[in-house]
Amino acid sequence: MIKAAIVGGTGYTAGETLRILLNHPEVQIASVFSTSCAGDSVSSVHTDLLGETTLKFSDTLGDPDVIFLCLGHGVSREFIDTHEISPDCKIIDLGNDFRLEPEYKGRKFVYGLADTFRDEVKNGHDVANPGCFATAIQSAIAPLAKKELIKDDIHVTAITGATGAGKKATSTTQFSWRDNNISIYKLFRHQHLGEIKRTLKRLTGGEAPEVHFVPMRGDFPRGIFASVYTKWYGSSACISDEAKTAEACSLFKEYYKESPFTFVAEQEISLKDVVNTNKCLLKVQVADGMIHISSMIDNLVKGAAGQAVENMNLLFGLDETTGLKFKPSAF
Amino acid sequence: MIKAAIVGGTGYTAGETLRILLNHPEVQIASVFSTSCAGDSVSSVHTDLLGETTLKFSDTLGDPDVIFLCLGHGVSREFIDTHEISPDCKIIDLGNDFRLEPEYKGRKFVYGLADTFRDEVKNGHDVANPGCFATAIQSAIAPLAKKELIKDDIHVTAITGATGAGKKATSTTQFSWRDNNISIYKLFRHQHLGEIKRTLKRLTGGEAPEVHFVPMRGDFPRGIFASVYTKWYGSSACISDEAKTAEACSLFKEYYKESPFTFVAEQEISLKDVVNTNKCLLKVQVADGMIHISSMIDNLVKGAAGQAVENMNLLFGLDETTGLKFKPSAF
Amino acid sequence: MIKAAIVGGTGYTAGETLRILLNHPEVQIASVFSTSCAGDSVSSVHTDLLGETTLKFSDTLGDPDVIFLCLGHGVSREFIDTHEISPDCKIIDLGNDFRLEPEYKGRKFVYGLADTFRDEVKNGHDVANPGCFATAIQSAIAPLAKKELIKDDIHVTAITGATGAGKKATSTTQFSWRDNNISIYKLFRHQHLGEIKRTLKRLTGGEAPEVHFVPMRGDFPRGIFASVYTKWYGSSACISDEAKTAEACSLFKEYYKESPFTFVAEQEISLKDVVNTNKCLLKVQVADGMIHISSMIDNLVKGAAGQAVENMNLLFGLDETTGLKFKPSAF
Amino acid sequence: MIKAAIVGGTGYTAGETLRILLNHPEVQIASVFSTSCAGDSVSSVHTDLLGETTLKFSDTLGDPDVIFLCLGHGVSREFIDTHEISPDCKIIDLGNDFRLEPEYKGRKFVYGLADTFRDEVKNGHDVANPGCFATAIQSAIAPLAKKELIKDDIHVTAITGATGAGKKATSTTQFSWRDNNISIYKLFRHQHLGEIKRTLKRLTGGEAPEVHFVPMRGDFPRGIFASVYTKWYGSSACISDEAKTAEACSLFKEYYKESPFTFVAEQEISLKDVVNTNKCLLKVQVADGMIHISSMIDNLVKGAAGQAVENMNLLFGLDETTGLKFKPSAF
Repeated sequence: MIKAAIVGGTGYTAGETLRILLNHPEVQIASVFSTSCAGDSVSSVHTDLLGETTLKFSDTLGDPDVIFLCLGHGVSREFIDTHEISPDCKIIDLGNDFRLEPEYKGRKFVYGLADTFRDEVKNGHDVANPGCFATAIQSAIAPLAKKELIKDDIHVTAITGATGAGKKATSTTQFSWRDNNISIYKLFRHQHLGEIKRTLKRLTGGEAPEVHFVPMRGDFPRGIFASVYTKWYGSSACISDEAKTAEACSLFKEYYKESPFTFVAEQEISLKDVVNTNKCLLKVQVADGMIHISSMIDNLVKGAAGQAVENMNLLFGLDETTGLKFKPSAF
Repeated sequence: MIKAAIVGGTGYTAGETLRILLNHPEVQIASVFSTSCAGDSVSSVHTDLLGETTLKFSDTLGDPDVIFLCLGHGVSREFIDTHEISPDCKIIDLGNDFRLEPEYKGRKFVYGLADTFRDEVKNGHDVANPGCFATAIQSAIAPLAKKELIKDDIHVTAITGATGAGKKATSTTQFSWRDNNISIYKLFRHQHLGEIKRTLKRLTGGEAPEVHFVPMRGDFPRGIFASVYTKWYGSSACISDEAKTAEACSLFKEYYKESPFTFVAEQEISLKDVVNTNKCLLKVQVADGMIHISSMIDNLVKGAAGQAVENMNLLFGLDETTGLKFKPSAF
Repeated sequence: MIKAAIVGGTGYTAGETLRILLNHPEVQIASVFSTSCAGDSVSSVHTDLLGETTLKFSDTLGDPDVIFLCLGHGVSREFIDTHEISPDCKIIDLGNDFRLEPEYKGRKFVYGLADTFRDEVKNGHDVANPGCFATAIQSAIAPLAKKELIKDDIHVTAITGATGAGKKATSTTQFSWRDNNISIYKLFRHQHLGEIKRTLKRLTGGEAPEVHFVPMRGDFPRGIFASVYTKWYGSSACISDEAKTAEACSLFKEYYKESPFTFVAEQEISLKDVVNTNKCLLKVQVADGMIHISSMIDNLVKGAAGQAVENMNLLFGLDETTGLKFKPSAF
Repeated sequence: MIKAAIVGGTGYTAGETLRILLNHPEVQIASVFSTSCAGDSVSSVHTDLLGETTLKFSDTLGDPDVIFLCLGHGVSREFIDTHEISPDCKIIDLGNDFRLEPEYKGRKFVYGLADTFRDEVKNGHDVANPGCFATAIQSAIAPLAKKELIKDDIHVTAITGATGAGKKATSTTQFSWRDNNISIYKLFRHQHLGEIKRTLKRLTGGEAPEVHFVPMRGDFPRGIFASVYTKWYGSSACISDEAKTAEACSLFKEYYKESPFTFVAEQEISLKDVVNTNKCLLKVQVADGMIHISSMIDNLVKGAAGQAVENMNLLFGLDETTGLKFKPSAF
């Protein structure tokens, strides 16, 4: 059994990591670390876990084989600095501390976009788990980048659920405001652009194209819906949009053929098809001279805790899907 | 023109009072009083008022003919204590400071349940505006109390929108928690029971019956839906439930025949039929030996700012509906 | 492996049964029966199953060990009449055909309220799965009935999610109407009262008390929140409400001590604590002379497909929780 | 008083037109025309109008001065063909029959994008009311087109509320599906592109630029949120994004200086700032070399019935705002 510690235990991603690990057949919880709530029962904060665990928050780590850092951005380095962690213990950071600067105190954090860097993760020791928007958007453009088919600006609009903003109550996470509302924030300058461009450079070996990214706050708790398009430079043999779409779909299916959670849909799909699952669904269409990809994930699962556990499975040589086959909520 | 001051200007009920008064043909805003935001434009806080007003928050009252106190409960007395208010200036308190103890510093606050105490308000000087739950529930039981038809316990379940909890961000007003959720709070001991029982005593001239009130938090921003029932003691001449229902409906229609905003529905109705209006809709049915009344209001309008302006109209001898005919939002 | 057929495969409860059985370690899907969609891929209808199954709808049953009938009410008898089903094959009916009249063509349908009739189900052959409202409400009152502590009318208000109305598009399942709305239907005469009263009679051995049941349509897709109360006749030794509440909680905990999915909460809980799980959460309080129970389930899981699979586990001698430990959606 | 007939009286836009006209001080309802419901009370269908009108649906037009055609697309021509309408009677068509082909049977339909074609409407006789998406999007780009500042592709993502799909129950207007969901439809080929491009041509006098339009279905009943951007070709004197933004804002404010309902916001805004109002709010920002405009309207008001009445006011020489100052719902 893998002994896992979850640090930052009262937040949304920690709760979700815990929800997943409690049912993981190869994992035993070493600790749910929280200094503020140490001694309290975990289900007093994550009330949905009532009846599923009698664990209490702890201010010691136990003796974990792997630590999930579910901390505010910038706090992971500080945690590593101030706690004694065995060099053998693997770290999976769900924050953004090691996504752009992967080396820290002798550790090297592999960027855990599992579908694209599967082998690196398998051979890695520590993981910088991708951001939620970054996961949805990169899933849509990595296959194109890999084939050097991005020759023009990329246009992205992506809408996130309210859990993406974290647990702290603010004016934009208030129900009365957010319900039935839509708004834009961090126009063209969301922090996930950094990791997206870094991946684009690695995949193309050259300069990253422009990515114009409009992030929106959606009026739902879970999920990210990304709408992505760029000019299509496919085979000249494909004349009709149907033929071009078929070509593009093939390219995507080939790219994801070994991915157990990422699928290319033929049919109409919508955000709720992925909610409460570790799946990423992609719908690929060519029209108007553009290739358009709709990319959908659950921000807390594939966009955070689910992909983190997927990465843990890869790090420990388990089947990638272990403990990650969830009943979709669907509605 | 009536010069009106709105005190506590940044809160939900103040915003709603302002939304109403800006279009009121007989009112001119003397001030939107807020010490914390004095000098800021009103539309910087109530962003929906962009383009509709260039007013700024002020820390002086102006010289109002009427003051709407939109303060936290308990704060109205303090405001009166610490500000010089002309004795001629009328006060309408939207908090609960004067509902149970109506006399204060030479003022006598009439309980402004307009449909039931219309004449008292017309002849009054100051008004204690009823609570939102209290308005919905009393609208359902006042006709029965008046006819001394309540001879058994009253059972009430009422669900409120999130704006009822005020503007302060808390764990139960968080979108991620409240969306698609239902919960109970203050079981059998909501503070509005006090004013409800006081009205029951006044109407019956005797003891108030037991009122078992289950308040619920609903996953919508606006509205209160109250489900109310008690044993039915109608005419022995009515045998079938249809006949009993007809008798009960007549009683309610008679009671509300002069009310411009309260209506008894024959058809199926639902909460959104009243949202963004000053209406109270009632559906009356007799079945199972019980008379059941569904009572629906918008908690911010009929349950607060709308009824407050209705009371202002009555105080100043205007037609009761002046400035209160709103386009329903319906959806 | 148990070979399972799901009949009525395109509806909500069939979809949910399928979502559960696809991950059940002891089950193999024999068929997803639908005459209207025979030949179509299951994921073309249940789009969230894309990537999780390549099953197609079929118009033959296969050779199942158990059949889940997910049909409109009244249609289960017809299905049995018109299809050849081996007498060895067990039937679990999710409709209401056998809840009140359990014997049909040599089969005897045990009422599958698992927590209360666990042993009967274990020894049974066929199951009439309880209704969703009936599950939530009976979970709240069975412990009291068993102890003969119900000596007065029972008051129930219960709010259901929109999936409870089935998949057919109607005016009351329209988004524009239902969003942010609340309404009452079938006041005091919901069809689940029949099975509730039947259980009360069986548990008390006498007449069933009056149950006044106000069903409401909620503006959420999943879940039932039932608020239930009746006069409390506890020990005279308990004076304070706290002591009475403690006594009542003990009684409920004792009743559910062998139940793997039904829990009595000490803390504040809300509907979303059970969504997408097979749990029933109960909050028990004594106040105002009443015992009040909040009872929460997911209508499609514990209220339908989840309890059906729980009953299958019992019928086949498996651990009751097999395949039913779902990650809660929580938000 | 203007006598107005509303044709297609049971639909969403007819209901909204009626809600508006009932409170319009210069209008008297000549008829609410519906053959299917003739004789029924209007409030039996538009249940929120209970207590506000005792009108009945009629199968005769009365003798109107103006007819609002609220019919399915393509049906307006048929209605004109089959009914005798006085040449003096003005027609405002809320469908799309005359937006691209404005001449029909001696009538010439002015395109009623009030802010841009105000004078034409004032001098017109009949109006083709713009589509809802078309109103939101054109409000964002008309000021740029007028100044010939569009020299590159326009990128549009716009999200619509469920009422935009009309009243007919379909799988994508089902609550269980639409709640908390997002999806794309008619990718790059929404029918409103026609009228958008037509306006662009008229304003620029040349060819229309490419408009890449991604329409989305939102999980709210009312409102359209359009996110629009294109390359910015402003003054070379403006170096910083702040200076460029100021220049762009000035241009927009100048364009809309006579518009009583369209405003350029300095502050952060969100969709609900316009819901239940006839306003269009615009937020203009320059960044990343792009000018980005967020454009928000209520699809049933400014996007349909509200702008239709605004056009009626212009046609009849009334103040443009008459009867259109609604209390915002805000929450």
